[in-house]
Amino acid sequence: MHICFIIAMEAEAVSIIENLSLDEVANFASGLPMRAWSGLYGSDQISVVVNGKDTDYNLDLIGTQAATLSTHLAINHFKPDLIISAGTAGAFQSKGAKIGEVYLSYPHVVFHDRRVDIPGWDKMGVGRFPVYDVREIALALKLKTGVVTTGNSLDMPETDEATIRTIGGEIKEMEAAAVAWVASLHNVPMFCIKSVTDLVDSAHPTHEQFLSNLRLAVESLTDVCLKAVAFLLSNKT
Amino acid sequence: MHICFIIAMEAEAVSIIENLSLDEVANFASGLPMRAWSGLYGSDQISVVVNGKDTDYNLDLIGTQAATLSTHLAINHFKPDLIISAGTAGAFQSKGAKIGEVYLSYPHVVFHDRRVDIPGWDKMGVGRFPVYDVREIALALKLKTGVVTTGNSLDMPETDEATIRTIGGEIKEMEAAAVAWVASLHNVPMFCIKSVTDLVDSAHPTHEQFLSNLRLAVESLTDVCLKAVAFLLSNKT
Repeated sequence: MHICFIIAMEAEAVSIIENLSLDEVANFASGLPMRAWSGLYGSDQISVVVNGKDTDYNLDLIGTQAATLSTHLAINHFKPDLIISAGTAGAFQSKGAKIGEVYLSYPHVVFHDRRVDIPGWDKMGVGRFPVYDVREIALALKLKTGVVTTGNSLDMPETDEATIRTIGGEIKEMEAAAVAWVASLHNVPMFCIKSVTDLVDSAHPTHEQFLSNLRLAVESLTDVCLKAVAFLLSNKT
Repeated sequence: MHICFIIAMEAEAVSIIENLSLDEVANFASGLPMRAWSGLYGSDQISVVVNGKDTDYNLDLIGTQAATLSTHLAINHFKPDLIISAGTAGAFQSKGAKIGEVYLSYPHVVFHDRRVDIPGWDKMGVGRFPVYDVREIALALKLKTGVVTTGNSLDMPETDEATIRTIGGEIKEMEAAAVAWVASLHNVPMFCIKSVTDLVDSAHPTHEQFLSNLRLAVESLTDVCLKAVAFLLSNKT
């Protein structure tokens, strides 16, 4: 079995790569910024793909356009059996979320910033991509599950908040639905592991919370990603 | 010289394909929904790539995720010398735009729905991708030029309108900046040809204008695309 993590930022991925002793894959993206690491885990294989950096700004690429390309490259290169979109995210304190808490996606992943008010295109915009059934993992690792909702902005203006409420989003982030869309095109199952950096309905601006809570959230993200891999590979059929 | 058009919807592309007598490329996207047509134009080559249809909804894929993948596949397959993001778009009557009028992108293409309020990421979110210098074509074909701004929604809530005003967007559509981003990763020059279906600052909802003006806008889009190809290929250096 080959499990491939798609992770936006290198800071979110580096502990997972180190803990699993993965090696960087040379020429993974032939000139594109995406980078990949891979290695054996018993008789199975684990890979991690990150978006890489924008050459003008020397900052990690984030958002759905980069996630689309990363996922396509990952599938073409590794032909994985399962994709995990892992990373940090926002959540709602009104729904009981806490900083550093980790959620699994279930029962689907959606977009909250693709509004097209034409019948058919309205539903296609939201997406509602089904995910791998994580209920056993969530039970075993004592994790919450929820609808993961994706958009290209870190903030949450009224329009996005209304959409997120309508579609029942519990975890707000910037890549998962694009990863899910590309995975669905290739018929590869996927789910998300998302660690809370910020409470989007708190008084503190999301970007300030994100920067101050990133380290804590990445620690719990790494812990759950390693445990999820162990669970999946010891319970595979 | 090889010019490749990236067009979201088949309805926007079909007249161009017919007028240039392009043939469909078999197995262009190996199982993915994207489709391509190609053919000779004198000693040069023209190709057209469209996003293809969502299998659940049987509707044309639109937006930046599909445009990202289409552009990547197009560049990998055709290795074009120039990419043209062509299609229909919204524009502002307050800036003098009219239904069916065609604009060329200049001096850049931007995103208006990637808000990340962290220094560096804020500018990276907007993108500001430079485009091929279209000033000679615009002069020869008597076309307006303007900043093309991209987002994943057809409507324009207050947040997007404020961003579009700040970044000076004149043409509002749903794919160009993603096409420009992928083209820039591969160092392929690009520009946009966009025909106005709707006036986003009018009293009529954008989606109603879009549906009723699509045929007229596609006629003028086709006309300008054919003239631009003729101009580019007769004036190449």
